[in-house]
Amino acid sequence: MSDSDRNINPSLRSRKRIHPSSTSTETYVEQILAGNRTFLSRAITLIESQQPRHQEQAQAILAACLPHSGKGIRIGITGSPGVGKSTFIEALGQMLLQEGKQVGVLAIDPSSPMSKGSILGDKTRMAKLSREEKAFIRPSPAGTSLGGVAQKTRETIILCEAAGFDHILLETVGVGQSEVAVHAMTDLFLLLLLPGAGDELQGIKRGIVEMADLLVINKAEAEREQLARDTQRAYRNALHLYPPKDSGWTPQVAAGSALNNTGMDKIRSLIHQYFEHLQKKDLLIRKRREQALFWFEETIDQQLKLFFQRDQAVQEAMTKIRQQVAKETLTPFQGAQKLLDIFLQKNT
Amino acid sequence: MSDSDRNINPSLRSRKRIHPSSTSTETYVEQILAGNRTFLSRAITLIESQQPRHQEQAQAILAACLPHSGKGIRIGITGSPGVGKSTFIEALGQMLLQEGKQVGVLAIDPSSPMSKGSILGDKTRMAKLSREEKAFIRPSPAGTSLGGVAQKTRETIILCEAAGFDHILLETVGVGQSEVAVHAMTDLFLLLLLPGAGDELQGIKRGIVEMADLLVINKAEAEREQLARDTQRAYRNALHLYPPKDSGWTPQVAAGSALNNTGMDKIRSLIHQYFEHLQKKDLLIRKRREQALFWFEETIDQQLKLFFQRDQAVQEAMTKIRQQVAKETLTPFQGAQKLLDIFLQKNT
Repeated sequence: MSDSDRNINPSLRSRKRIHPSSTSTETYVEQILAGNRTFLSRAITLIESQQPRHQEQAQAILAACLPHSGKGIRIGITGSPGVGKSTFIEALGQMLLQEGKQVGVLAIDPSSPMSKGSILGDKTRMAKLSREEKAFIRPSPAGTSLGGVAQKTRETIILCEAAGFDHILLETVGVGQSEVAVHAMTDLFLLLLLPGAGDELQGIKRGIVEMADLLVINKAEAEREQLARDTQRAYRNALHLYPPKDSGWTPQVAAGSALNNTGMDKIRSLIHQYFEHLQKKDLLIRKRREQALFWFEETIDQQLKLFFQRDQAVQEAMTKIRQQVAKETLTPFQGAQKLLDIFLQKNT
Repeated sequence: MSDSDRNINPSLRSRKRIHPSSTSTETYVEQILAGNRTFLSRAITLIESQQPRHQEQAQAILAACLPHSGKGIRIGITGSPGVGKSTFIEALGQMLLQEGKQVGVLAIDPSSPMSKGSILGDKTRMAKLSREEKAFIRPSPAGTSLGGVAQKTRETIILCEAAGFDHILLETVGVGQSEVAVHAMTDLFLLLLLPGAGDELQGIKRGIVEMADLLVINKAEAEREQLARDTQRAYRNALHLYPPKDSGWTPQVAAGSALNNTGMDKIRSLIHQYFEHLQKKDLLIRKRREQALFWFEETIDQQLKLFFQRDQAVQEAMTKIRQQVAKETLTPFQGAQKLLDIFLQKNT
């Protein structure tokens, strides 16, 4: 691997027209395990490709990398637009780099196709971090279905970890369900909040606060410091109303300014405490196992549905039966049963 | 049909060992359409039966009754234990009976098998209503899966409407997801609340308040009247924070005491206003259509999953593959793919 390979920002390279599958799977695996980010980036492109040939190779690469993954610390970061997610990720990322860590930054955004240029792909957004050699920034994979995007992102995490990245920061860019997906593929779920407003006014969906392991009131700059402290106290009180987490961890609320780099040490130390808590009780292994099984079942459901929807005979009968159900000349159950009979007759 | 048939409380009768399928489908349909509640009750027992022969007849009866259903007004009623749901249903039910309506009272409780005696089956719980000839009270169908219980309840609504019941009061007895199911099969979703405490302290799950079309602060008796008024105002203010409903209806907050029968006229009139609003804009038809399609898709998903889980080859391979996924020697996607290959190989 040449030095120039190492230095080219992979998020730029991935935009070029490349032919990833002209390289052998063995080479990919070898280079990824050696930490070559150009090959890592190309392998992620294979994961994201719709071509069966690419998908096949991607799965082979993943199978070989899987035993070398799992050692990273996976942090999900969410919050409303305007809360300062990218500034926070820059600050936290640089902090980790200074500790000698290798940081991968990924995103989930089912709404914006990559071709349009995900915000994360914008170099100006994380200008400092994107210049760092030990950081790897990858925009959200394209896709309209959250399930598809989530799968690609989980597979990207595996490759990043196999390539030696020991801290994965996973940002939610989309709204709504993407937080749930990120929560289900990370070890720590961090929610960024603004000083002052309650979570409903901030556009935080109900249920998100309960999922958080660490809440950070960001933008606690001079004139908002008192407000941030009040907000911090309000959330601390509110968290008492929620049932305790299975892990036994009490969600913590910190305040700071990623922009001015204040309060970041405390946040770093809380992240550390959280992982110590998980590791002490073997909870990390259990959490990862539960997550793997969750996605296993999700994938089966999705794929079964897809297989059903793509069935020729089902497609031909669907429109009429749907209409009958909508007009209530068939009960939903009877309509479903008719379609399933058509499907099963052909498939059994 | 004899008079004695009409007068026997069907919720008692349904507990007896009966052999419903010795009666022809034609007789069932004829008697149900004539408003014979003994046959209605027996047909519901067929719906609830696990025997294929019974299920088949139940579906035939449903198909014949379906064109005669849909004219009822379906009201879902929810609230925490202790809020006074049964007293409220008694008061509202008797009010409707006095107007000359025919009232069916059903419940959804996936957690308590009917054999144990659902609370609703307890005559003392709705003593007045259960003595009324024009009221029909049926306990929640048995079942551990909410999907199954929900299907049976939706089918019971069809039969009740075909039998001439023009008001269906559907109570949630279980917690959690059953509110979502009841919301998806009723026209109006009514949430009962206690004076004083906020919804989180009352054990109301997040998301339930947003689903409500009508909130009733119950138990607003003398000493709690002021508190009830404060709570009413607090909820009115809180509701402004939620996005407007697709129907254009602004959720209303009323207060009253079902026990003392105060405030019930106002509540009755709000229910009336709500349905006028829906009917004026043809929203009821649209709502029902959306609900039918929702359950249609839900049923397909459930049945597909069931078919997959019951597959012999899938069952044989499942344990090992699940373990590999849990141990992360296979990615969730690879594990799912392996199982699906086994399933599809056999079924295509």
